[in-house]
Amino acid sequence: MQIAIVLFDRFTALDAVGPYETLGRLPDATTVFVAERSGPVRTDTGSLALTADRTLAEVPAPDLVVVPGGPGQTAQMDNPVLLDWLRAADLTSTWTTSVCTGSLILAAAGLLRGRRATSHWLALDHLRRFGAEPAEERVVTDGKYVTAAGVSAGIDMGLTLLGRIAGDEHAQAVQLLTEYDPQPPYDAGSPHKAPAHLVERFRAGSRFSSTGSR
Amino acid sequence: MQIAIVLFDRFTALDAVGPYETLGRLPDATTVFVAERSGPVRTDTGSLALTADRTLAEVPAPDLVVVPGGPGQTAQMDNPVLLDWLRAADLTSTWTTSVCTGSLILAAAGLLRGRRATSHWLALDHLRRFGAEPAEERVVTDGKYVTAAGVSAGIDMGLTLLGRIAGDEHAQAVQLLTEYDPQPPYDAGSPHKAPAHLVERFRAGSRFSSTGSR
Repeated sequence: MQIAIVLFDRFTALDAVGPYETLGRLPDATTVFVAERSGPVRTDTGSLALTADRTLAEVPAPDLVVVPGGPGQTAQMDNPVLLDWLRAADLTSTWTTSVCTGSLILAAAGLLRGRRATSHWLALDHLRRFGAEPAEERVVTDGKYVTAAGVSAGIDMGLTLLGRIAGDEHAQAVQLLTEYDPQPPYDAGSPHKAPAHLVERFRAGSRFSSTGSR
Repeated sequence: MQIAIVLFDRFTALDAVGPYETLGRLPDATTVFVAERSGPVRTDTGSLALTADRTLAEVPAPDLVVVPGGPGQTAQMDNPVLLDWLRAADLTSTWTTSVCTGSLILAAAGLLRGRRATSHWLALDHLRRFGAEPAEERVVTDGKYVTAAGVSAGIDMGLTLLGRIAGDEHAQAVQLLTEYDPQPPYDAGSPHKAPAHLVERFRAGSRFSSTGSR
């Protein structure tokens, strides 16, 4: 089994590393980071780069595709190289997945039409523009399409997929090894739990705030 | 404020990326990934590399130091270049921190003597060999020394530190932006919750299992 995790300029690191740290521990699978060009790819903060070891063209038919999100997602929604690669990879993939606003890239490629899907909470409604049905859930599975909510939700998606692919016990083993027993010091991780003024501030300042924006 | 996240061969990616994704969003701070040599540094699985933009020598006095863990930690406990750098950086740091078995590196540098500290659950008892007092908690703060449990605990540590440094509201804002509202599909993230046979299997196979090992 081959797992391809897509990188692009200004992606959010944890979107990619959450699935990597879980799915990357699948037995009998190889994980490869891919991008339009191989080499280091900078994250949204600019202070970190992850290496894409292969170009998209070099990995044409992965079994499992992971598309992260982040501010750079907007530009990728108009990138024919990535969109064409996703459409082609999706023809033979067993699982086509995303984290955070990566689902908008899948949607822009036409892969989520008529599907239930999720995204970062600030971007969720924008899935409708591409014919997807927004679902406000942590991890949404519709057929072979699995989408995760914002950033850290990729860890939950990775464990969910591990269970589906390798069985509950393997997923539990990876959860134990990564000591994923979360104890956040605050309870502000969703727009329903965070202080309302923070939610409003982010909605007002978001690149998804004005009609027609992405 | 300067945040230095240390990389070394065969570190665990999420150990470093959890604190990065949270602390890296501290206002008026710069984050820099450092290693003995600059350039790509491979993780424990071999399928991912993160870029160290600076050498240790180029970043002699960060305000906040983060040391990740992973299988490569064993070799680093005998690496005088890293240990000397940690001792020197610690003289002027405001916070000296670790995730997972990174605490064993801090301990080997002599920085945790007489301190309460945590580590990956498989390695926790080994802190005693260096005069530290093992504490089975998700995030342990003893003075300026903050240590996190295994792998994913670095996210909780990052939010904890954000709250201490920039205030509760900023930490909540970062939790909301990273949508850190964990919903693991299993409840197996600690040795007290996971199936006992998995815990035993990992204890038996661990590099920390035999007396005197690290």
